[in-house]
Amino acid sequence: MPRPAPLSGLVLVLCGPSGAGKSTLITRLEAQLPELAFSVSYTTRPPRMGEVHGQDYAFVEPEEFTRRRDAGEFLEHAVVHGNLYGTHRGHVEGLAQGGAVVVLDIDVQGARQVRETDADIVFVFVMPPSFEELERRLRSRATDAEDVILRRLGVARSEMADAPRFDYVVVNDDVAQATSDLAAIVRAERLKRTAPATCAALLG
Amino acid sequence: MPRPAPLSGLVLVLCGPSGAGKSTLITRLEAQLPELAFSVSYTTRPPRMGEVHGQDYAFVEPEEFTRRRDAGEFLEHAVVHGNLYGTHRGHVEGLAQGGAVVVLDIDVQGARQVRETDADIVFVFVMPPSFEELERRLRSRATDAEDVILRRLGVARSEMADAPRFDYVVVNDDVAQATSDLAAIVRAERLKRTAPATCAALLG
Repeated sequence: MPRPAPLSGLVLVLCGPSGAGKSTLITRLEAQLPELAFSVSYTTRPPRMGEVHGQDYAFVEPEEFTRRRDAGEFLEHAVVHGNLYGTHRGHVEGLAQGGAVVVLDIDVQGARQVRETDADIVFVFVMPPSFEELERRLRSRATDAEDVILRRLGVARSEMADAPRFDYVVVNDDVAQATSDLAAIVRAERLKRTAPATCAALLG
Repeated sequence: MPRPAPLSGLVLVLCGPSGAGKSTLITRLEAQLPELAFSVSYTTRPPRMGEVHGQDYAFVEPEEFTRRRDAGEFLEHAVVHGNLYGTHRGHVEGLAQGGAVVVLDIDVQGARQVRETDADIVFVFVMPPSFEELERRLRSRATDAEDVILRRLGVARSEMADAPRFDYVVVNDDVAQATSDLAAIVRAERLKRTAPATCAALLG
């Protein structure tokens, strides 16, 4: 009888307002999860010095981008400073099929677009423990003007209103605890997706 | 703003053939999860010396059992040696609402009955890494006659055929790894069920 199936890959959308600590969580998770991967976005922006096509971005002409977009190749896409950016579904699913845990670090508008596809994706929202703590974190950076901080808090409040639409909400109060929460979600969701292959391997 | 909601309770059906190591896994999980609880079954069997009503079992007359059964109060029920046994839905859900992680250690027939209810329950199947390993484990107990071992292997094969109907399959090759898998499943499923309360608490 063959050995059990290897653990399945996974695609994870990770959202959260600025100050929730999403980047720190991703860095912590990356340190304990070698299978963590990030997708290479498509963009119509020209490459900057040192950027490698297919590594930093897939740099394409606007015509190619819109053709791919209209063919439904993107899980989500957006315009930023007049340039088009898109997350390529085939690329992301290919990584996951190879066993990778692909994290899509996108905003709630992007998450809404992804949710409208039928892709097999887990949605996780990272929350600050309170609005007061979020404000404290944003202020402690000490680099931003008052109006910038107030605008960020307003955006955060609006983004957090989308949290009930996510599969999981991780409260980032203690970063070690939140990392463990995220790791448990990844492990459980991978186990769930591995179950059919495990049964096939063990039951023959 | 109030603090985030406490972690939700959970009801978990844990199945697996004799020799898969289910009892060891439960003991290991219990050591790291204070919220782990077991339900008190109803039975028509008379209490044995030292058994406490409402603690070891809820001892009831056959009339009360059948009345409760016919009213749909049991998630699953079975006859063993002429006595009736049942898992009381209200009792189990009450424990989970209080924050407990309730493990229902039942057989695949029981799991099938539970699956037919609309109760919010997570189904986990514990698998040996192979039939060969299962046979080795059953033989290493060295207390059973050959025909008993062969019968157990046949029953195991039949029970394992139900595994594809479970939400999760945990392969118990390395017991520490399998315990971690089970702990991750419990944590992720609790986080998923806590999300609405977390959002309500943080968004107000």
